[in-house]
Parts: sequence; structure tokens; C-alpha cells
Amino acid sequence: MSENSKSTTIIGNALPNLPWEDRPEGSIEPMWRFSQNPIIGWNPMPSGARAYNSAVVPYGDGFVGVFRVDSKSGRAGLHFGTSPDAINWQLENDLIEWVDEAGNPNPNSYAYDPRVVKIEDTFYITWCDDLKGASIGMGYTKDFKTFVKTENPLMPFNRNGVLFPRKINGEYVLLSRPSDSAHTPFGDIFLSHSKDMTYWGKHRHVMSSGGSGWWQGTKIGAGPIPIETKEGWLLFYHGVSGTCNGFVYSIGAALLDLEDPSKVLYRTRGYLLTPEKEYETTGFVPNVAFPCATMYDAPTGRIAIYYGAADTYSAVAFTQVDDLIEYIKNDSEV
Amino acid sequence: MSENSKSTTIIGNALPNLPWEDRPEGSIEPMWRFSQNPIIGWNPMPSGARAYNSAVVPYGDGFVGVFRVDSKSGRAGLHFGTSPDAINWQLENDLIEWVDEAGNPNPNSYAYDPRVVKIEDTFYITWCDDLKGASIGMGYTKDFKTFVKTENPLMPFNRNGVLFPRKINGEYVLLSRPSDSAHTPFGDIFLSHSKDMTYWGKHRHVMSSGGSGWWQGTKIGAGPIPIETKEGWLLFYHGVSGTCNGFVYSIGAALLDLEDPSKVLYRTRGYLLTPEKEYETTGFVPNVAFPCATMYDAPTGRIAIYYGAADTYSAVAFTQVDDLIEYIKNDSEV
Repeated sequence: MSENSKSTTIIGNALPNLPWEDRPEGSIEPMWRFSQNPIIGWNPMPSGARAYNSAVVPYGDGFVGVFRVDSKSGRAGLHFGTSPDAINWQLENDLIEWVDEAGNPNPNSYAYDPRVVKIEDTFYITWCDDLKGASIGMGYTKDFKTFVKTENPLMPFNRNGVLFPRKINGEYVLLSRPSDSAHTPFGDIFLSHSKDMTYWGKHRHVMSSGGSGWWQGTKIGAGPIPIETKEGWLLFYHGVSGTCNGFVYSIGAALLDLEDPSKVLYRTRGYLLTPEKEYETTGFVPNVAFPCATMYDAPTGRIAIYYGAADTYSAVAFTQVDDLIEYIKNDSEV
Repeated sequence: MSENSKSTTIIGNALPNLPWEDRPEGSIEPMWRFSQNPIIGWNPMPSGARAYNSAVVPYGDGFVGVFRVDSKSGRAGLHFGTSPDAINWQLENDLIEWVDEAGNPNPNSYAYDPRVVKIEDTFYITWCDDLKGASIGMGYTKDFKTFVKTENPLMPFNRNGVLFPRKINGEYVLLSRPSDSAHTPFGDIFLSHSKDMTYWGKHRHVMSSGGSGWWQGTKIGAGPIPIETKEGWLLFYHGVSGTCNGFVYSIGAALLDLEDPSKVLYRTRGYLLTPEKEYETTGFVPNVAFPCATMYDAPTGRIAIYYGAADTYSAVAFTQVDDLIEYIKNDSEV
């Protein structure tokens, strides 16, 4: 199936103004980079050194995002951004001002790698928070003006908390990656259930690092919000290879069972995208491609993947859902 | 106050047949060892090499326990035991046969360091379980014949899950110590809340390793079920010192606020008991005193502390609640 055909695979909305470029002439890759990458470079605003590993969603006539920005002190925080086209972004110079349920200031110690998902009329935000150690932060907004920080869903140490975009069998479902207190040389993807977003349980192992390929041999973590498709939940994830000179972060994908997403149906044996370009291989942390968001246009099956590059840049890649699923099925290792 | 006086400090039951020895003549220690320690030695039954770090409770006219037993393959599992006097124990040779809620077999991969608490008419058991890594296992029994294993309350990696003996402000409360996937060179005590023992949230940090004393500088973890007293929840805990030749586990105690047990009122600056005796300083893992259970007689304030010694032996120590609380207050560092 060509990327310009009609598709009924994604169970979701149309987004005619989704950023898009056709697959380059002659390319055989399952995912191709935006020709104008990176879309955000060094020093995106006066207070910030780097904006990357960030989450964007359609909102109103345009787009909004919650961005990880490392300040010039090196500390990571969350900033709000807006864009008319999801390519050219205007980031606020100040941190998002989180409040508690009563409206009192409730600032983060640090915060990084946000994900944003709309469930019913609310945008839920998860990020890596500080609960005496790395843990999953959680909050919500309905208008991107008031941001309410709620309870940490899980105990430390944990990172890469990613919510599913709807309840499954009556419960919210949260992916995460238990970790240690530092750079964590291991990591599998788990999921947890909740009836109310406050109390979580029924924890399940989803998938392990490793397999025959080394690109995901050290650890893996959920990336963007999973996309519901007729073939299962399409989960992009990061896989990490440990080298003598540090970690290399690449992008893979899996299809999870719609009714029981702890069940992996298909999973990429090889990576979909690995750091090759200068903005991926050089920067504050070389050799990182770290996906935190997707947006899609269901009628065409077009998907734009937003990823952080080298812990420095924001970049975009594209794929088409039917081509991608065929690709994953043809070289799957569960 | 003498250990033979009447006391109204412990909010709990009488247990006239609690094992007891008076403080030895001339002793100034806050906690003193049973003269016949260890009460369980090497090879306690044909299948087992070592029984230690175990939980005992009054039951019927006597006592029962859930014991950590390392088999002769070296793997840890849970065994049931009975005793007329809480000193002489008869341990079953076979593992406890866990079932799921439907009654189907639900065996553990491994299981160690159990705690047992009676809440209303049910005995809840927590232990270190394998959820693709060390995590808190949970189950219950009403009769010590049928043992039902339920959901893991928290995500890996975690150890030393310890329930409070009643709901606090309408919720069950669970202490635990987030850890890594191995021998964990760090560790603080946290607590979590639940309305139903299945879904957990509102995670709070309780207390950190460290302070001015080195005996608890590397990590700390909750020990026996907290004892409710008029002065707060009396929590015995283990503190670990990292030496050039490995960890040393000692016993300390804290008083936690009755209404909000994440608030530490008092905490031992020095240890209450540290490995000194041969059964504590030598064995499978030298230099370990690891408390997992207490029993008390409220009208006298007598407390018997059950602790594992050198990951090999089961041992008992005694203290009196008023003397102990005075001792803690006199040398407290929060």
C-alpha cells in the first residue's frame, strides 16, 4: 500500500494539517526523516539551552506542546509551546506553573521527557519526576493554561510513563519502565491499571530488552502514546544498545493486543530509525533518537513521529501505518 | 519504668504466653538477646538449609509462622511452621502451596523475607516476590491452610513490603523500600495507600538512609509490622552499613505519627542491636541481624523481636516498650 492511499487501519481522527512529506524517491526505509530537521535547535529561548524529548498534540486550529527544556543551568523542566503547523514552534521562556488540585503552587524539582494524551475532554501529562528519585510525574490540563499536578502513579525508580489514549476494559492503563537511581543499565516495559488515575495496580510485564538484535539489548522504554489500529496498539519505543563509549538510543515499534496490551503480537527485530544524521550523532548526548510523541491522520494512515535527537534537538520523521505494519510483521521477533 | 511493671503504652492485645526473659543483670542495652539463641539452626528440615528472616504470629492456643527457608539448591521459598511456645518450631518440609483467587495453583518463582499481619479476620502476608525482578508479593490466609496469592501491590524493583495492622484514615498503608535489580547499594523507606489492597497510590517518602551514624548509611528498610502505641507507630527497621567486605545489617527503631505515618517523630541515632554473637557474625551471609516480626503483650509492654541472623539462623531478642521509647527519645535523630 502506498503512503498516498486511503487507509482504514488507524482507529482515530482525521488531521488534514498533519505535517507530512512523502517518502523520498528511492527510499526503502520504514520511517523517513523530515527534510528540514532539526525543527528546534540550540538555545530555543533565552532561558533554555536545548528543547527535545517533547510531546505535541493538535489543539484548536493548530498545535500545542509540552517541551522538555534544559535550562542554561543544565536542569530539565517543562515549558509550554504553540505552533500553527507543528513545525515552527514558539516556546514559552518560563516553566509551566504547576498547581495542586486546590490551585496552590506545586512546582517540580526537575521534570523531563513529557508525554501528552487526550482522554475524553482532558489532556493528561506524564513525565519523569523527582519523588526522592526518578519516578513518573502526572498531571492534567483542560485548556493548557491551568496545569494541575496530581499524585505520582508509581513508586520510584521509574521512567517513561506513557498512558493509553482510552480506558481498556474499564481501566486506565499506564506503560512504564522500572529503573534504578542512575543511568540504569537495564530496563523492560511494564504496564499498570487504574480505575481513577490515583491508585494503580495489576502490574504486568509487557516486553524485555534483548532478543537477537543488539540495538535493544540494554534497555527499552515506551515512547509516544500508543496508536489504536485494527491490528493492535501501535507502540513506538526506544531501544538502547550499550557500547564501550555509552548508550545508543534507536526507535523501534511493536503491536500490542487491543484487549490485553500486555500481550505483544509483533515487534521490530531491527530498528526503524537509528542515529545517523549529524543532529542525532552529535550534541549534548551523542547518538540518541528518542521518540515522545506522534500525530496521525487516520484516513491516510500518515504518522508524524516527534523525537529528541542527541538530547539537544527536536526532530520529526514520517511513516505510513499500513506500510509500517507490513514491515513490522515481515521482520518480527516477539 | 521497669520491664516488669504495668504499661498502657501499646494499643493492642494481651499475650500472656509471649516468650520472655528479663533483662540480664547489669545489662544497659535497650534490647537483649534470648539466652537460648539461635532458636532455629542449620538444616531445620530435610529440604531446607537455613530458616531465617521469618514472620510469626499468635494463633489459637499457640503460634504459627511463615518462614523463609533456603532450600538445598539455594533458592528461597516460604514454609509454614507451628509452635506451642514460639521458641520450638516445627517447620513443614514442603513449600506453602499458593493458589489464586479461583483456587488454582499459583506458585512463586522465589519468595523471601515474609511479614504476616492480622487485619480484621484475615492474615495478610507480604514477601519479596519475582515480578521479572524483586518486587513485593502479597497474599492472605484465614486459616493457615489455604494461602491465596493476590496482585503485586507495587512495581519492581522493591523489597521489604510491610503492612500496617489497621487502616489509617480509611486506607491500608504499606511500607516498602524501592531498590534496584541486584544487591542495591541505596534504599529509603516509602509508604503507599490503598482502599482495596489491589490498587496503590499516594506514595510518600518516610525516611532516608544516612544521618550522622554510619550503621544506617547505605540503606534502611522496614522490619516487623509496626506496633501501635500511644507515642506513635513503633517501627523496627534494619539499617545497613557498607564496608570494604560487604554489608552489615543492624536493628534500629522509629516512632511514626499515628495519623500520618510518613511523618517521623523519633528515630534511633545508634543501632539497638548489631551483629556481635557468633550466630550473627558467621553463617551464609556474615554480619546480618534482620528483624521481620514482633509479638507483644500490651499490659506489660513486653516485646519479642524475631530476627534472622547471618541469613542462616532464627533468633529472638526482647525489649520493653516504655524503656525502649524513652531510649529512642533520648538519642533521637530524625
